[in-house]
Amino acid sequence: MMQQCKQGKVPQSVVEAAAAEILDPEVLADLVARGRAVIARNVHRPGIKPLAIGEKTRIKVNANIGTSRDRTDPDFELAKLKAALEAGADTVMDLSTGGDIDAIRKSITDNCPVPLGTVPVYQAAIESRDQGVGFAAMDPDLLFGVIRRHAETGVDFVTVHCGINSRSLDVLRDNERLMGVVSRGGAFICEWMTYNNADNPLYERFDELLEIAAEHEIVLSLGDGFRPGSVLDATDAAQVAELFVLGELTRRARDAGVQVMIEGPGHVPLDQVISNVDLEKRICDGAPFYVLGPLVTDIAPGYDHIGCAIGGALAAWHGADFLCYVTPSEHLGLPTVDQVHEGVIAAKIAAHAADLARGRPDAWAKDRLISERRHEQDFKGQIEIAMDPKRAAQLRAQSPPQEEDVCTMCGEYCAIRVSKRALGRKR
Amino acid sequence: MMQQCKQGKVPQSVVEAAAAEILDPEVLADLVARGRAVIARNVHRPGIKPLAIGEKTRIKVNANIGTSRDRTDPDFELAKLKAALEAGADTVMDLSTGGDIDAIRKSITDNCPVPLGTVPVYQAAIESRDQGVGFAAMDPDLLFGVIRRHAETGVDFVTVHCGINSRSLDVLRDNERLMGVVSRGGAFICEWMTYNNADNPLYERFDELLEIAAEHEIVLSLGDGFRPGSVLDATDAAQVAELFVLGELTRRARDAGVQVMIEGPGHVPLDQVISNVDLEKRICDGAPFYVLGPLVTDIAPGYDHIGCAIGGALAAWHGADFLCYVTPSEHLGLPTVDQVHEGVIAAKIAAHAADLARGRPDAWAKDRLISERRHEQDFKGQIEIAMDPKRAAQLRAQSPPQEEDVCTMCGEYCAIRVSKRALGRKR
Repeated sequence: MMQQCKQGKVPQSVVEAAAAEILDPEVLADLVARGRAVIARNVHRPGIKPLAIGEKTRIKVNANIGTSRDRTDPDFELAKLKAALEAGADTVMDLSTGGDIDAIRKSITDNCPVPLGTVPVYQAAIESRDQGVGFAAMDPDLLFGVIRRHAETGVDFVTVHCGINSRSLDVLRDNERLMGVVSRGGAFICEWMTYNNADNPLYERFDELLEIAAEHEIVLSLGDGFRPGSVLDATDAAQVAELFVLGELTRRARDAGVQVMIEGPGHVPLDQVISNVDLEKRICDGAPFYVLGPLVTDIAPGYDHIGCAIGGALAAWHGADFLCYVTPSEHLGLPTVDQVHEGVIAAKIAAHAADLARGRPDAWAKDRLISERRHEQDFKGQIEIAMDPKRAAQLRAQSPPQEEDVCTMCGEYCAIRVSKRALGRKR
Repeated sequence: MMQQCKQGKVPQSVVEAAAAEILDPEVLADLVARGRAVIARNVHRPGIKPLAIGEKTRIKVNANIGTSRDRTDPDFELAKLKAALEAGADTVMDLSTGGDIDAIRKSITDNCPVPLGTVPVYQAAIESRDQGVGFAAMDPDLLFGVIRRHAETGVDFVTVHCGINSRSLDVLRDNERLMGVVSRGGAFICEWMTYNNADNPLYERFDELLEIAAEHEIVLSLGDGFRPGSVLDATDAAQVAELFVLGELTRRARDAGVQVMIEGPGHVPLDQVISNVDLEKRICDGAPFYVLGPLVTDIAPGYDHIGCAIGGALAAWHGADFLCYVTPSEHLGLPTVDQVHEGVIAAKIAAHAADLARGRPDAWAKDRLISERRHEQDFKGQIEIAMDPKRAAQLRAQSPPQEEDVCTMCGEYCAIRVSKRALGRKR
């Protein structure tokens, strides 16, 4: 697909993805050809709508779901999937590490009309353990086998921690950081490299990854194994060293006609968010940037969706393309269905705020419409088009006003009502 | 007090306020003398700790409480007060418009160890209505009487919408905006001016306000009656025209030895937040900036605390000094006790993120400590020092892990545990 774009063609998936954006298909095909945007859709999933992520597109939001050893119920995963989709997630990642992982992924894939991502190294770690050898002694072929299986069974994008290699790991070892490695996949890779005294197979055998990705038209999401896990570790030598490797791999992927996005931090103080985006765009030549947060403080577990909304809005305004949600239970445990919903909404607020700041006319039209209804004191109409109509209706019902056209905050002293009386209805 | 600072003295209240900051009392006294910081404490409230707001101080958070016509229960107000204080509000504003307003304010004042603010024009409107004349026909002496009463009974800062005058109102009339006037106080003033075909008494009799403020050592919070009520109205001619008037009044207040802060928007798209701060700091010569949000999108009622956290963090990083919270029920009704709590926490996350971005060592120490405990996999220790320990404990308990030193998101695959195994405990 990317190869066709590089040849100046406009594949059908690009036409379909462009239709959901305010974007000419030929412009999008050119962005894909240059690696500035990716189209997420596995060749085995013709039934889903292809999704564009990157330059000139609406900012997208991902929701992570998946089992853990402590909770393996497939129905719970489908409930979280439903909640994420209803809240407006643009993609979903299945990060399952418990139960029958292939079966759970199949059930999620079958019920997921949006692009689905995975982190295959998790399953490789578990299968390795189940073989009784542990991840450190894993045969790299097992990992590549899992990746191939995910590609064959319809996964649209996979996170692969290819940026950890002997160079970037040396930098990590040589430079003190507070939190060490907080990426699960990154930690596995470090363990494997240390135990085997060998380089990361995902880096060494990157060409093989490219072949799998090309064959199944999946997007490689180049993971940030060394992302900071505290604002004190942000933008440190290890993080940047890994990003340099990802820059090199981005060029190799593009040459091979394989689409890549770059994953980014993580815990980042507000004043380093913009420079993190600038750095990624420069080092990886404008590849789509997929950030986890960024979370702008470490001190508010229970509310990390808010800390991430702050960082995500700023990052996306300045060029990040894709926001991974974080739920209120981040750093504390697996989220409930309601927390999945709340996490998606928080990330969508950040994405929308950035779309406004970038001047997207489709974003501005939404704010105009709800403001017009607010000015008309049409509460029912406002709530209908709110980002989360159910929640808005519930909060209004919690405190019902005596008159339909005001709310209980001001009642008869409603500023809109008073000012219309004073100044006329003229806007 | 400000007069003493202008004479090079360091009043006791400045010494006390400086003790809560990382600030030399003489530096703070100089900031107060130049109007770059204010000390909030009414001369009749020697029992409370004076609070510094402005340049070089920690960013502060205000929580609004108060009755409405629909809900006049004083106990409910005390419950909201308690929730706001427990969540860490630095100040509280009583915006009551229902029941026995003087009695409710007294009960709040008696239970409020932090500076208390009010918007006296609300009470004036109600007393006017109770006299059967309506606000439009109110005698301005009634309004000044209420302001004096608030000052005499210990209110530490009052919002006064002095920036609406014949000039700025003309600008509002001459320039179309979507939402009209969304400030309750601003709408009252517009109604009064239109009905009486006269200028705003709060502007015309500003010297009288200065006398009251000087006598009782209260801070005048110069209200933004023309703040935008939609992102489409942000930074428009009316808003800026009012700000120009506030700049003029700031100079007059400083000459009279009266402390002022400037209230700011409101609904502002992300890309206009920084310029709004810059504009205020320039036009009002660095006077403390007290912002309501800013709320970066109109489309998410039910989650406006998140939209405001995004705007507030960015504003505060760039120089706003004081964030007024917004609760999830903004635009829908009066908040519950829980929503007051959630609103304060969201604003405090924004304030803290900005304090980090501004490089405050006291802010960084908090993130360092919790990160150290996180690295130690000490969940109990992390939760104890989290911004909201109760909520963090509750979310952890909702999904209890099989082992004490991990959480259910990763379980045995905890990245911190794996990476310590791989790389050693060395940081």
